[in-house]
Amino acid sequence: MPYFDAASAAPLHPVARQALLAALDDGWADPSRLYREGRKARMLLDAAREAAAEAVGCRPDELTFTPSGTRAVHTGVAGALAGRRRVGRHLIVSAVEHSSVLHSAEVFEAEGGQVTRVPVARTGAVDVGSYEAVLRPDTALACLQSANHEVGTVQPVAAVAEACRAAGVPLLVDAAQSLGWERVAGDWSLLTGSAHKWGGPSGVGLLVVRKGVRFAVQGASDERESGRAPGFENLPAVVAAAASLRAVRAEAEREAERLRELTARIRARVPELVPDVEVVGDAERRLPGIVTFSCLYVDGETLLHELDREGFSVSSGSSCTSSTLTPSHVLKAMGVLSEGNVRVSLPAGAAEGDVERFLEVLPGVVAGVREKLGAPTPSAAVQEDVLVVDALGKRCPIPVIELAKVIGTVPVGGTVRVLSDDEAARLDIPAWCEMRGQEYVGEEKADKGTAYLVRRIN
Amino acid sequence: MPYFDAASAAPLHPVARQALLAALDDGWADPSRLYREGRKARMLLDAAREAAAEAVGCRPDELTFTPSGTRAVHTGVAGALAGRRRVGRHLIVSAVEHSSVLHSAEVFEAEGGQVTRVPVARTGAVDVGSYEAVLRPDTALACLQSANHEVGTVQPVAAVAEACRAAGVPLLVDAAQSLGWERVAGDWSLLTGSAHKWGGPSGVGLLVVRKGVRFAVQGASDERESGRAPGFENLPAVVAAAASLRAVRAEAEREAERLRELTARIRARVPELVPDVEVVGDAERRLPGIVTFSCLYVDGETLLHELDREGFSVSSGSSCTSSTLTPSHVLKAMGVLSEGNVRVSLPAGAAEGDVERFLEVLPGVVAGVREKLGAPTPSAAVQEDVLVVDALGKRCPIPVIELAKVIGTVPVGGTVRVLSDDEAARLDIPAWCEMRGQEYVGEEKADKGTAYLVRRIN
Repeated sequence: MPYFDAASAAPLHPVARQALLAALDDGWADPSRLYREGRKARMLLDAAREAAAEAVGCRPDELTFTPSGTRAVHTGVAGALAGRRRVGRHLIVSAVEHSSVLHSAEVFEAEGGQVTRVPVARTGAVDVGSYEAVLRPDTALACLQSANHEVGTVQPVAAVAEACRAAGVPLLVDAAQSLGWERVAGDWSLLTGSAHKWGGPSGVGLLVVRKGVRFAVQGASDERESGRAPGFENLPAVVAAAASLRAVRAEAEREAERLRELTARIRARVPELVPDVEVVGDAERRLPGIVTFSCLYVDGETLLHELDREGFSVSSGSSCTSSTLTPSHVLKAMGVLSEGNVRVSLPAGAAEGDVERFLEVLPGVVAGVREKLGAPTPSAAVQEDVLVVDALGKRCPIPVIELAKVIGTVPVGGTVRVLSDDEAARLDIPAWCEMRGQEYVGEEKADKGTAYLVRRIN
Repeated sequence: MPYFDAASAAPLHPVARQALLAALDDGWADPSRLYREGRKARMLLDAAREAAAEAVGCRPDELTFTPSGTRAVHTGVAGALAGRRRVGRHLIVSAVEHSSVLHSAEVFEAEGGQVTRVPVARTGAVDVGSYEAVLRPDTALACLQSANHEVGTVQPVAAVAEACRAAGVPLLVDAAQSLGWERVAGDWSLLTGSAHKWGGPSGVGLLVVRKGVRFAVQGASDERESGRAPGFENLPAVVAAAASLRAVRAEAEREAERLRELTARIRARVPELVPDVEVVGDAERRLPGIVTFSCLYVDGETLLHELDREGFSVSSGSSCTSSTLTPSHVLKAMGVLSEGNVRVSLPAGAAEGDVERFLEVLPGVVAGVREKLGAPTPSAAVQEDVLVVDALGKRCPIPVIELAKVIGTVPVGGTVRVLSDDEAARLDIPAWCEMRGQEYVGEEKADKGTAYLVRRIN
């Protein structure tokens, strides 16, 4: 049963499993104790730290093991901001960071800090010049992911790090998606990672703070992990995390090439096999294993459910599959279609045959979902010289389906006014216009919800 | 090789190991995903939460899995204080809480909160009346451990909980040391625990917040674990923690009885076998597996080292074994001797033969350490009618050894003035006087360090 959601969590690497088992026997004691069980645990912890530091490209005493990548980000952002409180209260993040970075930014804002969110291009990448332009004398910290977790786009970290260095601002790189593949290039100041993304166990993250970076841990702490990660060390998992990082790196170059070819195949063939699909993310500067596309007129939750029935585990940034009812902030920032969104992220070792079978199955699954959704009766009424589609109370992808159904009924030059109270419509109606070559005129507040105006061009 | 430091960390219970292995295969995926690997993970997580809640005696939705007991305490204390910010900014803790509670209290103080530290009797227990007396209308939170981690004394939690309930103050119980043995009795409001103390894996703590308790998570969070423990769930370890809690509870009653007999044996026989020893902690109201004693004229680090050479892994609250150079805050609060301190904490399954061998070995080890330390020449000089011992620059247990050497040289009624700059002397000289029936007159500031005055009575 093919699992294609490695960007969420990768199955445990065999080396991780082996190391974990060994460390359960030898690494359960308190490494701060002086007796032999404690000394054994300390040796394992030191060795794991050295191995992880070598893979990251830092000094062992710059690296802290945390309980997760999310905790590494929370601690790293809060600590760096507090360490430079006297410099200023300005934080820069890209608009497509992982939620852990964005949550940290929200907390900072709630405490009176200022946050600049750097927009991204349609590819998902930040522009180095735009990033550089928002650096200020009072900027305490800048954050940029090494690569995006939803669309796989690689960010220009080395160039942004150089700009930050020139401005005297520390750069925190969330390297969760790329650390299993390679070291992060460039002169960054802080770095975070997450073991279960590279085939290590859950329960382990990395926080690297370069020597010389001002850092003040927030909240209660203790004497463990240089005071940066309180609580008893999760030693067997830490040992497994370090061992598996080393192991996946040894296979990384060859496996990256293989997966890159498989994802390139999906990128090329999905639009040939399935009508009305937008493949998103940078076609060249991207992670080896991630490919993301969105299917017009498709409800993401039903699509995932049908793919699951066919044996494929994939993820989605559509609002229909999330509890928050808003589409992925990444797709939103990129300005691409979010409905019927599918992220395929191949784990190391993914079989070519499984990818081929996915490509065989996908067209029928999408067609089936569209057929099921195709029947709704649009309640359209001509109001003055504008055709009004009332999609109030209807959720993604219904508003776009109703728009598509009626666009052919107005003359070229005529306008369709879609009334919707679904947050995804704000993203998906403009995206549909771009895909279909129709003109998106804009939105305006309606009595209920929002009216989206579309002019028929062809 | 007998490991007698279960209060620091217990070796992994066979059930924990088995559950961990199974969950590595079935529980690595993201439990918030809709595909089958995610659903499997969600089922495991739900089942683990139900099992843990049953063992704790709470509703599953009141229980959050955290990355450690320490994190559970940090989150619990900060969240409860913030939740009742409008009620007031007063926190009550006992003087003998675990450092995670005391660190949380220090952070609260640094932020302008007020903290009352309730003293304990010589047994290590708080007095219910004294605890009740410090409850105030502006008390936001009260904390009391279920049992002490260094001396094993059980606290009157149910009575204190009742007093807190009557005052409308939530009580947080750090149950790390007792949760493997039994549920915490009484009407507490918040509870914390740590899996590796009961034979579960490291990387898992518990935080229980009763329905109706005001709670506001501090810092960044996410949608996991009711927003109270951000970051990807450490699922295999959580499964192992819950399974082993259930397993140790099934054996708890019988094993408690067995260990209680073994520790009673140590309590009774150590003072017979080793001269000048003080067994500390409550003789009756105590945990089954912990016994703590202090040996006069002994350096804790050397003692632990020698016991380790004999094959025994034990812990110590002496300043000589800690990096902070201050003796255990617990022994200090109890006002008992801290030098040559040894904590024996038996893991479940500890062999009677090993305990007997420990009792055989101990007298020789203590005598050996005393012999090594017995030779220092005290620089004593009669100044006016007082004998002055200059122990400046000398560390525990030397000041007490020098005092003991000269006390016989002054007449009954005469005074010895011990000059010391070692923090442990403040605790150990009065404790020695109590053990020896001499009068501790008091301390005064000297030109260098502190002068401790002792009057010879017998």
